[in-house]
Amino acid sequence: MKKVAIVATGLTKFNKTEKSLDSIMLSSIKSLFENTRNLDQKDIDVVLTSTNANKNYLANIISELSGIKPKISHSVESLCNSGTNSLVSACAYVSSGLSETALVVGGEKTDSPGLVLNWDMSRGEFKHPIFWASMFTSAHMRKYNTSLEDLAYVSIKNHNNALDNPYAYFEKLFSLDDVMHSKNLTENIRQLDCSMPCDGSAAVLICSEEKAMKYTDAPIWITGIGQKTISASFTKNNDLTSMESTKTAVADAYKMSHKTSKDVDVAELHDAFSVCEIIELEDMEFCQKGHGAKFVRELYDTGNKKINPRGGLIGAGHPLGATGIAQVVEIYQQLSGKAQKRQVSSAKTGLVHNMSAGSTSSTVLVLES
Amino acid sequence: MKKVAIVATGLTKFNKTEKSLDSIMLSSIKSLFENTRNLDQKDIDVVLTSTNANKNYLANIISELSGIKPKISHSVESLCNSGTNSLVSACAYVSSGLSETALVVGGEKTDSPGLVLNWDMSRGEFKHPIFWASMFTSAHMRKYNTSLEDLAYVSIKNHNNALDNPYAYFEKLFSLDDVMHSKNLTENIRQLDCSMPCDGSAAVLICSEEKAMKYTDAPIWITGIGQKTISASFTKNNDLTSMESTKTAVADAYKMSHKTSKDVDVAELHDAFSVCEIIELEDMEFCQKGHGAKFVRELYDTGNKKINPRGGLIGAGHPLGATGIAQVVEIYQQLSGKAQKRQVSSAKTGLVHNMSAGSTSSTVLVLES
Repeated sequence: MKKVAIVATGLTKFNKTEKSLDSIMLSSIKSLFENTRNLDQKDIDVVLTSTNANKNYLANIISELSGIKPKISHSVESLCNSGTNSLVSACAYVSSGLSETALVVGGEKTDSPGLVLNWDMSRGEFKHPIFWASMFTSAHMRKYNTSLEDLAYVSIKNHNNALDNPYAYFEKLFSLDDVMHSKNLTENIRQLDCSMPCDGSAAVLICSEEKAMKYTDAPIWITGIGQKTISASFTKNNDLTSMESTKTAVADAYKMSHKTSKDVDVAELHDAFSVCEIIELEDMEFCQKGHGAKFVRELYDTGNKKINPRGGLIGAGHPLGATGIAQVVEIYQQLSGKAQKRQVSSAKTGLVHNMSAGSTSSTVLVLES
Repeated sequence: MKKVAIVATGLTKFNKTEKSLDSIMLSSIKSLFENTRNLDQKDIDVVLTSTNANKNYLANIISELSGIKPKISHSVESLCNSGTNSLVSACAYVSSGLSETALVVGGEKTDSPGLVLNWDMSRGEFKHPIFWASMFTSAHMRKYNTSLEDLAYVSIKNHNNALDNPYAYFEKLFSLDDVMHSKNLTENIRQLDCSMPCDGSAAVLICSEEKAMKYTDAPIWITGIGQKTISASFTKNNDLTSMESTKTAVADAYKMSHKTSKDVDVAELHDAFSVCEIIELEDMEFCQKGHGAKFVRELYDTGNKKINPRGGLIGAGHPLGATGIAQVVEIYQQLSGKAQKRQVSSAKTGLVHNMSAGSTSSTVLVLES
């Protein structure tokens, strides 16, 4: 793949509002334009929108409202990894030479239709994502003696990290006790183990190598891309202590970028529920299989912000179609040295992991400064 | 752009049924697999679905039902040119090197939400596409003395062509009188001037140059791509006797392919309404501005099937998300010499024009054998 760069980003505060989806998405585009030198609407060849909302012609609507007349404009949807799917699609447009620049904007409202998995008949009446998470949790507890306290550490670590993220949905410190005693939603998942659906938008500008320096002195390069779809139905994932699509995606992304987990200075992992971060740390080789919970505790005890510095989905909130793009925005800021209180020192290589519906589909990106 | 080929196609009969969207889309994929040598589900790197329907995770659902576990899978939406948007996206994935093969499948049911343009507040209460078509018709009649009879010739030509297309929705010959006396829907648009929403699906397999010969001895090459989005709202198209986005898209597609309209042996034009074909023939330089109606009459009088040999949207039906892909299937068959009774003799260079919402967005593709 011909080299492509991220040259600009925009973000909105994650919250719950009366604003329309269009309006939220425009806010992140406005913020992107305000943060970027030499950027004119005329420069933008591609506009891709990412959302789970039932909105026809959204990319055209957003283009018109932004004053952009792109060559290519369409929406991309793949539930919770819509964001990284649209971003990889943008990379393909730029890398192929069909465009020089591509604006990717994700957005979601709290009441997204993506929150209920009505199409998956293999789930029976258990259509809410919490049920697959509960099954993952049971399996991991059984096989690796993972405890409810272990899971709670993911939550307090990420909520703690979110306190330094001015765009995060949560603005409150939670103690271990708060998580352990938050409402039981299933036999092993409590309210504070869950990411929170919310309003939010994130935008990223992808650019060819030739044009990158026009917009920034320090482009961030997308050097690894891995994606894998196993199925739509949750029942196709046979081993509930690991995520098959994630393992394939990360292997491909590491291979393409010539990196391993040891090279990764900072990572955004898709912690839709506490158990996800533990499994993902193991599957992405940040630690041995079965050691994810221990790894999280060490991060928390040492105040290490390497994993989910913006607070992850649990701390920052989860506006479905925006999440993958917001993860990329965080890694861009980290590798640019602009992550302020969240900054992981000397971060040169970052990773984004974004997945859908019980890891039936995963995207992994490696970014480098 | 690195060369990409079309190596296989699949199609369903366009009709109105009780079948689900998934089921219809699977039928065109099944037909594609049955028509293609050496094709295994494992070969497919990308699955893109194209529809206006409110269906989350559709590309994953279709992948699972087809036994495909792709790297990349997502839906693409841009109203009536969703099909060609997904196809160009597939070209970008293959051309960039992110994939070797990409399966694009479009599908729609008769009751598609894309049929009512609720989001366009500039239309006031006139939300049905027929109202923009009626305004185009009035403007063209005023400026070029186009008559209702001229418009009717588009309809009878395309309905006549559809008689040789076994997949077409309409299976009946219509006379000039039938069209002229079909129900008046607006002051200048009659029932038979309109394309008919219906069920339908079409599928195309895109492939890298290196892999193309595995699946066919005669790949068809995508040598020209042009796309342009002007707006989402109809009111932004200032001159209602031409289609600004189409003019830009065709210029770019001709430039990329080093072709002009003179080189085009066969073309699929987006005749959502009769007036569209007339304007498009002019804007794409098949004839002089204002001579579109005359050009159509000549085609009809001489039995020339060069334009819309499968019957266009008016004769074949218009399943929104499938239309652009079905147009590509037709040109593939024409350039492969497999168009049977519809075959345009010695067709080497073909063109596809697919647009959305009063030509607020257009795609033009040049294909070559």
